[in-house]
Amino acid sequence: MESNNYNDPSVIGGCSVPVRVNRKSKPDPTVVDLRGIRIGSSDIVIIAGPCAVENNEQLSETVKAVKTAGAAMLRGGAFKPRSSPYNFQGLGEEGVRMMRDISRESGLPFVTEVMDTRQVGFVAEYADMLQIGSRNMHNYPLLKEVGMLRKPVLLKRGMMATIEEFLLSAEYILSQGNDQVVLCERGIRTFEPTTRNTLDLSAVPMLKHLSHLPVIVDPSHGTGHRWMVPAMAKAAVAAGCDGLIIEVHYKPEEALCDGHQSLSPEEFSKLMTDLGKVAHAVGREILLPQPSVL
Amino acid sequence: MESNNYNDPSVIGGCSVPVRVNRKSKPDPTVVDLRGIRIGSSDIVIIAGPCAVENNEQLSETVKAVKTAGAAMLRGGAFKPRSSPYNFQGLGEEGVRMMRDISRESGLPFVTEVMDTRQVGFVAEYADMLQIGSRNMHNYPLLKEVGMLRKPVLLKRGMMATIEEFLLSAEYILSQGNDQVVLCERGIRTFEPTTRNTLDLSAVPMLKHLSHLPVIVDPSHGTGHRWMVPAMAKAAVAAGCDGLIIEVHYKPEEALCDGHQSLSPEEFSKLMTDLGKVAHAVGREILLPQPSVL
Amino acid sequence: MESNNYNDPSVIGGCSVPVRVNRKSKPDPTVVDLRGIRIGSSDIVIIAGPCAVENNEQLSETVKAVKTAGAAMLRGGAFKPRSSPYNFQGLGEEGVRMMRDISRESGLPFVTEVMDTRQVGFVAEYADMLQIGSRNMHNYPLLKEVGMLRKPVLLKRGMMATIEEFLLSAEYILSQGNDQVVLCERGIRTFEPTTRNTLDLSAVPMLKHLSHLPVIVDPSHGTGHRWMVPAMAKAAVAAGCDGLIIEVHYKPEEALCDGHQSLSPEEFSKLMTDLGKVAHAVGREILLPQPSVL
Amino acid sequence: MESNNYNDPSVIGGCSVPVRVNRKSKPDPTVVDLRGIRIGSSDIVIIAGPCAVENNEQLSETVKAVKTAGAAMLRGGAFKPRSSPYNFQGLGEEGVRMMRDISRESGLPFVTEVMDTRQVGFVAEYADMLQIGSRNMHNYPLLKEVGMLRKPVLLKRGMMATIEEFLLSAEYILSQGNDQVVLCERGIRTFEPTTRNTLDLSAVPMLKHLSHLPVIVDPSHGTGHRWMVPAMAKAAVAAGCDGLIIEVHYKPEEALCDGHQSLSPEEFSKLMTDLGKVAHAVGREILLPQPSVL
Repeated sequence: MESNNYNDPSVIGGCSVPVRVNRKSKPDPTVVDLRGIRIGSSDIVIIAGPCAVENNEQLSETVKAVKTAGAAMLRGGAFKPRSSPYNFQGLGEEGVRMMRDISRESGLPFVTEVMDTRQVGFVAEYADMLQIGSRNMHNYPLLKEVGMLRKPVLLKRGMMATIEEFLLSAEYILSQGNDQVVLCERGIRTFEPTTRNTLDLSAVPMLKHLSHLPVIVDPSHGTGHRWMVPAMAKAAVAAGCDGLIIEVHYKPEEALCDGHQSLSPEEFSKLMTDLGKVAHAVGREILLPQPSVL
Repeated sequence: MESNNYNDPSVIGGCSVPVRVNRKSKPDPTVVDLRGIRIGSSDIVIIAGPCAVENNEQLSETVKAVKTAGAAMLRGGAFKPRSSPYNFQGLGEEGVRMMRDISRESGLPFVTEVMDTRQVGFVAEYADMLQIGSRNMHNYPLLKEVGMLRKPVLLKRGMMATIEEFLLSAEYILSQGNDQVVLCERGIRTFEPTTRNTLDLSAVPMLKHLSHLPVIVDPSHGTGHRWMVPAMAKAAVAAGCDGLIIEVHYKPEEALCDGHQSLSPEEFSKLMTDLGKVAHAVGREILLPQPSVL
Repeated sequence: MESNNYNDPSVIGGCSVPVRVNRKSKPDPTVVDLRGIRIGSSDIVIIAGPCAVENNEQLSETVKAVKTAGAAMLRGGAFKPRSSPYNFQGLGEEGVRMMRDISRESGLPFVTEVMDTRQVGFVAEYADMLQIGSRNMHNYPLLKEVGMLRKPVLLKRGMMATIEEFLLSAEYILSQGNDQVVLCERGIRTFEPTTRNTLDLSAVPMLKHLSHLPVIVDPSHGTGHRWMVPAMAKAAVAAGCDGLIIEVHYKPEEALCDGHQSLSPEEFSKLMTDLGKVAHAVGREILLPQPSVL
Repeated sequence: MESNNYNDPSVIGGCSVPVRVNRKSKPDPTVVDLRGIRIGSSDIVIIAGPCAVENNEQLSETVKAVKTAGAAMLRGGAFKPRSSPYNFQGLGEEGVRMMRDISRESGLPFVTEVMDTRQVGFVAEYADMLQIGSRNMHNYPLLKEVGMLRKPVLLKRGMMATIEEFLLSAEYILSQGNDQVVLCERGIRTFEPTTRNTLDLSAVPMLKHLSHLPVIVDPSHGTGHRWMVPAMAKAAVAAGCDGLIIEVHYKPEEALCDGHQSLSPEEFSKLMTDLGKVAHAVGREILLPQPSVL
């Protein structure tokens, strides 16, 4: 008879969880607070907005739509990591300022990506949360730099990163003293060509099992198809995530970046209603912006 | 400005869907009927039972538990594909007969795996549905053999099969005249070691988009960890699957095969309740066995 | 200071090598003998021929060319595993007979694929060596069936199989009493789309390190591009393989199957010359057919 | 009959090669010159040295050994990208200065890694060539920064980067005006656990086919096992690479980093002799340091 490893810890694949992110060293879940928006509590936080900041009209129309639909927080890229040097690279510092302005106007906090250690100081002045993108999950100088801030960090899983490596990258941030880290599953690279990435929803229960950090999911990059986003967003909530980050564009067909995976305002509004039902079914609620904010 | 492929069909990765399984050639969803248990309708079918048939006590106790909890159909392996020739290989024909007997007694139809063209005739006499396992998804003589039956077939995705290859294997069955095929996502192989496989839930909306065949999910093999099964089962329902196939063992710690991924009766019963809530949240219901059956 | 696992056996990735294929249980390399063609000795065996047997002219012209160029053995598929049921499926039994005839005429032994347990008896009567293809590496009934023969078996690595699983499949054959097994690396599936597969040449030293069985390489399926075959064939010899299996077609542009990865007679002849030089550089020789054979 | 794509360019997997790195825009191979050491010419350049600079004794003893054995150029890491924040992180600027000193003393040029845009100016003052490591292949600000230098850059393939993405990252450097780029295949991530990575030697002919840039191979990281390095180094030369970068340590068992994949001086010396034979077999030679250098 073969060995029955029913209770064998090695069935977690020999994953070695570093000390600061380890749930064993801090049994209570970490809650990351952004001006009252608490990620990691029982309420699920929806972050929405365009892939990239393009211009004032695009930004204000999109933000108006996602706020009306009930998003608690904004996203919008200014420094864009693009595979080709000839693609739109983002508006840079100007884009960060535009996000700050619309954030103040709407009352919703925002997250934006930082790609270079030299940008960290500037972006940290403006943004509520700094995103480390998938391509920079292994960029250790950048992780150390945001680790020295006292600002929340959204760390996306590298498209090729194991769960162990993902947690080690979070540990780089915590090891510098910053424990305000939110983990984001955004799809991994596999052999399958029909989707942009393979959204690994099993990472949600696994990360919550191994670590005390909040876990959110990006179904937009995770699939690459706008028509798949609702199904996978609902599945992510059912799997136990603490939030979602979703690309919305007021005119997806005119987007400078990732239009094919961005929801229209109508699609996003419909999805918010559906997400509320699934959240309720698993004993949670979608966080609605506070009255004082509205 | 880069090309914006918002409406470009090639964003489905150039996947070429063969004619008989293609949704375009048959817009209405296929419903596979097993003695009144209809897979592919609005109700979600839960198939449960042990990984392998071991003996009479194990089988009858497990079946009693899954029937009480509300499973609509049984699973149980008699011909077991094991990576090592030195592992328990299943009870063979005797196991198939035991499944037939417990199926009659309980009133629940059952599915069991077939691995060899020479077994097909025998198994087809006894089982309500024949399973082609992941390791045999590319076994074309076997696909043709079950294609010549007029019996439902449960086709599991190869652990490293693309969506296109999966649909081509289904096409092998349909091309022989048998259109009673249910597709099953059961996890793909990736670089990640913490889970047995990476359950690709995005395959659910993708397969439903491309094909008219019903799609079910196996969260037991898909994760390899019993504690992950509930989260991923709920996520699968939220993603739109038509059913689940779940390993349950009356004493998981004593199972001869896959005990670490089998639910106990109590865990399965709790999960059934939770699945009902998630199904309801997405506008569906869990199929309950018909009164006449009970 | 981190742990230094310089001498730690676990750096072989925890691979568990089964007993009969294990080099530790049989330190001397296994040599598989086919009518005097010895695979696994110091000489490197080149197996060449068409992907599929198509007709008499194609077969005789191709065999004439590969024999002239110095191939020691023939390949040619009669039962063809094709992803689509609508592709050419091979000539079946007639194709096997044609291979037998051309083999007698040319004096070169041949290998051909078997896909179904029911074909094994027939093919074993005609062929010098039975091939288990990549898609059937996990087909355990088929492995057991060829394991009961006393005929050489060419076992191709599954496109998704780990080294450990590959050795376990070989163990299935040896466990039935047949130790005349040759392992064949033929490319694995990765995320890279420019090649049909990713030829894993590191499998050559790894398999030779762990097992006593001979190891050959298929650079045709391993790359999917005829212009890449020479570079990868030479690399395989430099890496220490015991043989190569190469697709050659007298008119590649008219092939019914895999023409884009088949060498023309001129390309194959040039390659044979180049392979001789590389073999010599690593202290080996390309096996030339015996005078009595010519 | 199926389509026969014998001459179809799409068999290169739809890979879109950007303009500046494209062989079509510059048919002559690029030769990168480092103080007379020319990478990309008919001679093959061997770069050797420790994974990380540790101390004076380690460095001088290792350099003495690799120079004696015939290496044309040195490697040695000072800024080390480590998965864990608790592993040895390298000697930093002091390590770069030590490399510069030993390089002057030995007469051999050297390459060292740069991880942060803020380090580029400093490292460029000292090093002959800057390495962008695998984890930073997608670090576009860093690519642009070294693109503004007029110094050679060694760009390693990301561990899960496609050939197309690899060439796009090189294009980032060329687009800033720096065309002195050498590409390095160092293994990709697959499902196989017995090797640290899967060394993709088919990348060598593919990259040489698509681009005019020189291509070298790292068999140390590519395998993770010192005993596999010789076989894969020889295979890389047979596959057509323009150079190798090999980890050597005077006492591998005491290395602070990657000792299990570092060759001892004796092993490296033996390998150099063997590489000469393989290079000769494919019509090339191993570049020996110029007499004036010795």
